[in-house]
Formats: sequence, structure tokens, C-alpha cells
Amino acid sequence: MPIRVTVWGENVHDQENDVVKGIYPNGMHNTIADFLRKDPEIICKTAILQQEEHGLTEEILEATDVLTWWGHCAHKQVVDEVVNRVQQRILQGMGLIVLHSGHFSKIFGKMLGTTCSLQWREAGETERVWVCNPGHPITKGIKRYFEVPQSEMYGEPFQVPTPEENIFISWFEGGEVFRSGLCYKRGNGKIFYFRPGHETFPVYYNSTVQKVISNSVYWVNSEIDVDSWKGKMERKIPIEPIKTQDEK
Amino acid sequence: MPIRVTVWGENVHDQENDVVKGIYPNGMHNTIADFLRKDPEIICKTAILQQEEHGLTEEILEATDVLTWWGHCAHKQVVDEVVNRVQQRILQGMGLIVLHSGHFSKIFGKMLGTTCSLQWREAGETERVWVCNPGHPITKGIKRYFEVPQSEMYGEPFQVPTPEENIFISWFEGGEVFRSGLCYKRGNGKIFYFRPGHETFPVYYNSTVQKVISNSVYWVNSEIDVDSWKGKMERKIPIEPIKTQDEK
Amino acid sequence: MPIRVTVWGENVHDQENDVVKGIYPNGMHNTIADFLRKDPEIICKTAILQQEEHGLTEEILEATDVLTWWGHCAHKQVVDEVVNRVQQRILQGMGLIVLHSGHFSKIFGKMLGTTCSLQWREAGETERVWVCNPGHPITKGIKRYFEVPQSEMYGEPFQVPTPEENIFISWFEGGEVFRSGLCYKRGNGKIFYFRPGHETFPVYYNSTVQKVISNSVYWVNSEIDVDSWKGKMERKIPIEPIKTQDEK
Amino acid sequence: MPIRVTVWGENVHDQENDVVKGIYPNGMHNTIADFLRKDPEIICKTAILQQEEHGLTEEILEATDVLTWWGHCAHKQVVDEVVNRVQQRILQGMGLIVLHSGHFSKIFGKMLGTTCSLQWREAGETERVWVCNPGHPITKGIKRYFEVPQSEMYGEPFQVPTPEENIFISWFEGGEVFRSGLCYKRGNGKIFYFRPGHETFPVYYNSTVQKVISNSVYWVNSEIDVDSWKGKMERKIPIEPIKTQDEK
Repeated sequence: MPIRVTVWGENVHDQENDVVKGIYPNGMHNTIADFLRKDPEIICKTAILQQEEHGLTEEILEATDVLTWWGHCAHKQVVDEVVNRVQQRILQGMGLIVLHSGHFSKIFGKMLGTTCSLQWREAGETERVWVCNPGHPITKGIKRYFEVPQSEMYGEPFQVPTPEENIFISWFEGGEVFRSGLCYKRGNGKIFYFRPGHETFPVYYNSTVQKVISNSVYWVNSEIDVDSWKGKMERKIPIEPIKTQDEK
Repeated sequence: MPIRVTVWGENVHDQENDVVKGIYPNGMHNTIADFLRKDPEIICKTAILQQEEHGLTEEILEATDVLTWWGHCAHKQVVDEVVNRVQQRILQGMGLIVLHSGHFSKIFGKMLGTTCSLQWREAGETERVWVCNPGHPITKGIKRYFEVPQSEMYGEPFQVPTPEENIFISWFEGGEVFRSGLCYKRGNGKIFYFRPGHETFPVYYNSTVQKVISNSVYWVNSEIDVDSWKGKMERKIPIEPIKTQDEK
Repeated sequence: MPIRVTVWGENVHDQENDVVKGIYPNGMHNTIADFLRKDPEIICKTAILQQEEHGLTEEILEATDVLTWWGHCAHKQVVDEVVNRVQQRILQGMGLIVLHSGHFSKIFGKMLGTTCSLQWREAGETERVWVCNPGHPITKGIKRYFEVPQSEMYGEPFQVPTPEENIFISWFEGGEVFRSGLCYKRGNGKIFYFRPGHETFPVYYNSTVQKVISNSVYWVNSEIDVDSWKGKMERKIPIEPIKTQDEK
Repeated sequence: MPIRVTVWGENVHDQENDVVKGIYPNGMHNTIADFLRKDPEIICKTAILQQEEHGLTEEILEATDVLTWWGHCAHKQVVDEVVNRVQQRILQGMGLIVLHSGHFSKIFGKMLGTTCSLQWREAGETERVWVCNPGHPITKGIKRYFEVPQSEMYGEPFQVPTPEENIFISWFEGGEVFRSGLCYKRGNGKIFYFRPGHETFPVYYNSTVQKVISNSVYWVNSEIDVDSWKGKMERKIPIEPIKTQDEK
């Protein structure tokens, strides 16, 4: 059974900014989908903000095992109804991979409950990404560290709950450091935050960045087996007899 | 410095239901505030749904170290603006104690990111609450277990993220079990969920229940020391020089 | 690639106690191995205390993906050299399933760092095991709860670090409760503690108990991919030039 | 009630190495104790490897609320009996602060269950320590980052269990990064690992390093309230009647 991935893209910079158009002429979401499709175990579709229901209807989410999320300038345009639907699907077991500026997406904040804020600088500086967890499936095939030659800087404090696993730490040429690969589980769903990736730099063509995203698709994917009772609040009949107050 | 507690009450059953009025003639929030006030280290105010901004204005929250939350039938009437404000204050360091049916409050779900659903039955059955963590400050002075003679049953699965500490597990006469004392930290704020407490039973007069709530006030209380930069997303200047692409 | 399981048994009660011999004539380890072997995806061997190096040589551990551990009266007879070897293999990625009285084994205490003590009673009472995490792979195919008609009681407090996931909670006829299915990760290795199982009761013939153990074999199994640098302390040459104190 | 701190020092380099003697003429343990003693809320004693029972007798541990640990070349000389005694006291509630090369101490490995290995280089390079958790009591009064002008490098992967909180991340002039402030709880005891500090550099005279260690003394300190039943394995009588198999 192949993994069914939906790559979600905000697709605003990709349409409006000439630098971004030059780097990602088909939009970042298509660049991401293209490299994932090279894996025969992955079936990959895309969805964008501008589609009806942002391309994330009930039917599409039900047919999605793993959702990747990239957004930046239009987080607020994502309607709450869709965000709630994505949340429910994650809790059922859909994997979520949040990329770069998706740290401020409604869905990431909703799943984690914190501001997810950070420090930043856009200066085209080098990012060196260090592996903290070399035995983790997400770092399979990755060496001690890899470099992204031009990156937007994200710096600590990254205001998120303590992750269940910390996979990468980035250092930036200008001096800052950042926890750039974080694992969470919420309900049945696994969540991976991966920092690298910026619209004005060709980060999603970097083969190591691609390898990490591919690895993380496998990691967040779960077999979902939702019985009717599992997610529901239900009134239950007692298993054992209950005494009245007089009998006690 | 005494701890400044605000006891929040939904105050709907307390006004409308004769059974509840009989047990809590001044409302559950006043019953809770009354026993907390016996501690000279605690200064306790109350706030209710029906007040302007639900009694949780900026000024009141800024003067609150610990907020306790009881709600049941009117969770949806709590306006999002107030919920967001409470969330921000928790992330700054205010403690939150969520009581019983507050598991379905907007603020608890917002902090945790999951459905917080559970199984239930209202049959006046005995609840036996077992201590899992006898050295924890919340269980100070509590024996191996204590009993609540009449309780609403809550049963697993309790759909919350894995707690950082599990303080109590309840067993119910009808057969179910439930993780009934859970600790979380989000941002600088500590959160404690405590299960016992129901509007139609005199649970908040139980001296052991009172002891646990008092202990948890101390535990969730933190010294807050918010510098200007801490919660904010800021653009930062580099510490080290950044090379241009030509220089690299 | 099938999963290579080694079922380790202390094999002392099984040889010396007539009740145990009556229930497990080939030893508990063979009963466990027998039901695991029904799964064509699993290749299962056994190892016992009485073998040289307790049957856990370097070669055998290197050919083991998942180790299950049952011990009770002879924990101290397990030599430290073998315990250390098992620990190293877990840190590399071997899964460990600790059964019942294995809570006091050297290997479990060594991995967790706490006493792992608990309360107990041997009275042949009913154990009702509740599912806390219905979407977890370990509970696949398990209903809301299952019962073991005759069990040794284990009661809280169970003195272990907070688990990463709490899968089951048991209630016992005599009144106590216990966290009876706990998940940990240490290094690359996953660890599952599963409470049911006692030498004087036929617990390992219970089909639901068997189902849980089979499920957990899959869950603790990991693909191990140990590069030479991963587990080792190494002196590293700098990537960037380091200034002398005079240059600073 | 002041906090009773015992500063433990290996005291080998301090006696044998002229560079170390030049920097820490009274031994590192006395340098650490000296700055802690400036706080009137702290009562501070020292203990060293060369004393009987390494200065950590039952009596001394019972009168210790917080133990700090520095060791490097003589970890193996610490006898297991003392290590076990320290572990028991931590589980009861004594705080432990592990400094720098103490990552390879017997007590740290025993509490965490992993190798605690890392990468390293001794080149006198700059260490920049970034705050990840600005609202935490351990970072009170600490700015965004601080620098140690000459440090031994420690690099990821640091093979420890996921910490409950990650307080600091260090970057080193030669390029590596490291999680340099980690929080754990085991039993009733809090544990803080703090990376900076090396025998051939005057790190423990750095006022920010001193501030962090002082803050962490407060954080790991707990009120201990050990009842007789808490740490013990006990056979319990049933609370509810247990049916015989015939009655079921």
C-alpha cells in the first residue's frame, strides 16, 4: 500500500513575487510534490489555498495519509472550518509535516497550543543543520550535518512544547541556533516540524532537504484503524453493579 | 508574597438547577474560593461567565497567578477573545487548574490541541482515587488513595497528549478507570487537570479534594519574569559577519 | 524481512514449582515463543538463564531485533556483563518487551534509572485491563478492555519515569489500579512494559494477552542502521577556523 | 529553611595538573562552593573522591538537598555502593546538578540509562550559549545568550533520553552545536545537566555560569516528604472482597 501524500501550498509568493517565480516557476508545492513522486511507494497530490475549501475537503483528507504544510503570508486566510477538519484528521492518525514558515500556521498552533514564535533574519546566510538523533528514521542516510548555502535565519527561543524527539539543531552564519527538526504525537497522529525552506532561496531543490522530507513522510505515516467508539464521547452502562447511597 | 488565585465558574447549573442550588447555594466557585481563602498564603477572587468579559479582563488576568476553571454546559458561550487572552497569560506563566467537566472547555482544548474526550456515566457511584506519584507536591498529605462517595464516572480513553506527570488514577464502582490528575507545561505556564468534582454531588466539600486543589495551586504557581523580548517575534541583527554568495 | 525475536526466560519456577510445571510444562518461554511463531512475519528463538551467557551472546543479540524478558526470583543471577551487552544492543535499536515481574529485572532498572517498585498481592483475583490509547499499534484489535480471570495484583505507585505513552491501565478485583502498558525510547531502542503474566496462572495462553504481545513486537521493532560514528565518543577536527586568544 | 548543597569534586586534575592548579588553586569544588556560599539561602559543603566513601556517607546525603557533580578522569574509581546510595537519595527527592564532563559519571548514566556519549575537541574555542527557555527559573536574569571565551567543545549527538525541558543550546567556534542545559525528573528528584565548565579554563569564575548554577540549585531543590510506604515494595491486603474461582 503506497503512502498517500497531499502537499499543501499557500501559493501566494509563488504567484506574486518575481524572485520566487524564478526559483519555483510551478510553485513550491509542485517542487515538493515532484521529488516525493520519485519514490514509487508514495502517491502525491497537491492542494492550495486558492482552491475551494483550500483543496482540503473531507474526501481529500480521508484519502490522505500524510499532509505537508507550507504557508507564510496568508495564514489568516485559511478558514477555521478547514483547520478544524485537518486537526480532526490528524487526531485520527494522519501524519503532518510542517515546513519552515508553517510554524505560524493555524494548524500548527492549534495542535501545539503555544505561540510557536521565534527570532528571524532574512540575509541569505549559511545554515548548518546538525543531526542530534542519528538512529532516527528521519535521519537515515544523513551525515553528521548538512548545509543550506542560503537560508532565512530562525533563532531560539522557539516557543513550542517540549518535543518528544529533537532530530536536528541548526546554526546560522550570523550566530543563532534553532531546534530545526521536532517530533510530536497528538491523538493518533504524528507531527514533524522541519525548519529549512524559504521562498526566495532554492532550498527545496537541495537533495539532503529532500531526503529529510521523504524520510519524514515514512515516519509520520501510521496505519489508521478507527473504530466507531474511539474518538467519541459516549455514555456507558456500568460493568459492575452500583450500590445506592442507602446500600453503602 | 501571597499567591493571587482567580476561581472561575460557569455559574449556570448553580443558578438554574435546584439540586445544584441545594448543594452549592452560593455557586461552586464560591465554595472553591472559600476553602482556598483559609490559607493565608492565598488571596482568592472569583470570576463568572455572566460578568463582562467573563470577569477575565486584562487587568484581572495580570493580577492573577493561578486560574481555576470549572465549566460544563456553557463552554461555547465563552468568547474566543477571552480564551485567547487566558492562553497568552498562561504562556507568560500563569498557572491553570482545570476541574472536572472543564476537560471540554475551550481553554483546555486550546492549550492541549486534542479533543479531550472521554467516556462518562452519571450514576452517583463511588470513585476511588489512587496516588501514582506519592512524592509530588500535589499529593503532599494524601494517603495511598481517597474515596469520593458519589461521583460522575469518567472513563478512558481520555484523549489528551501524554502528560508530563500522571498524579492520580481513578477507579469507579461501575468498573471504569481514568487518569484523573495530569500535569503539563505550556510556555512558562503549568497546567493541572483534576477530575473529581460534579455539580450534583458535594465533591468540593470533600476535605481531600480540597487538599489536592490547594496543593495544586502551589504547584502551578510560578514566578513570572517576562522581559520584553521573551514572547515576541523579532527580527535580529547578526552577531557574526555574513558572507555574500560571491565571498563564499 | 521477518522480525527476529528472542524470548528470554528465567526458567526457574518452570523447573522447580509443580503448579508452574503443570501450567507451562515446556516453560513459559516456550509458551510465549509458540504463539509468536504462528505469525509468519516473526522468527522466534528462546534463551534461558541456565545457558552459557544466559543464551545472550554477542552473536545472538546481533541477530535479535526484539527481545522479550520474563524473570522473577533470579534477577540477581543475571550477570552484569550480559546486562550491559543487552543495554548496548537496545541503545543501537533492538526492541525490548519486559513482561510482568520483569519490572525488577536488572535490564529494566538499568534502562529506566528508577526502582521500578510497586505494591502487590497474589490472590488469584480478576484483572480488568483498560485501553487508554485505542489508536496505538499495540492496541490494534483490542476492545475497550479485556479481563484476565486470575492475576497477581500490581498496584501504584509504580516507580518509573513518566512513560512516553501509557497504553493500558489495570484494575484489580481487590481494589488497586496500575499502569500496565508503558512505552519508552532509549537511544534507538523502543521499550514496552506489559504487566499481565504470572507463573502460577495460565495468563500466557490468554488470546488477548497474546495479541498484545504480538502487536508490541511490531511496535518495538526498528530498522537499525548503525554507522560507525553513531555510538562512539570521538575527537573532532573543527569545521571553522578557531582564533587564538590573542586574535580575539 | 536554607538549601543544603553538597558540591562533589573528583579533585584529581586539581591535584596533579599544573594548569588546573594555577586556575583552581583550591580545587574546582571549592571555587564552586565559594560562589554558592555568597547566597545566604544556601548552605554549602564539599565532598571529594579521596574522602572515605567519597565524602558521601548516608548521613551526609540525608543532610543534602542538592548535590552537584564534577568528574572527568576518575569516574571508574567511584565505588558502586556510593553511586547506588546517591541514586536512592535522588529518587527520594534530592536534586542533582551534573556539570560538564560529569556526563560520563556513573551516577548520570545510572539515572538516564543511556551512554551519554558526545563528540569533543579541546581547542580553547569560544562557546556561545543560547537560551531556549527564557521563562524557566534556571534562565532568570540571563540574556538571549552568553559567551564562554575558552571552552572544550562538546558536539551532538548527545546520547541521552529526550529531556523534559531543553534550557540551553551551545554553539562552538569550530562549528558544532550541543544541547547544553537539560532537565529531567527521576522519582522525586530533579536533575539538571549543565555543559560549561572545564578544568583547564577558568569557566567556573564566569559570572553567568555561576548565575546558571545558582539558579539551578533552586530549581532542582524539592521539599522531600517521604512516608514509610512511598519507596517500598509492599504486599497489600485487598480493599474489596475477592471471589474464588468457583464463585465467579
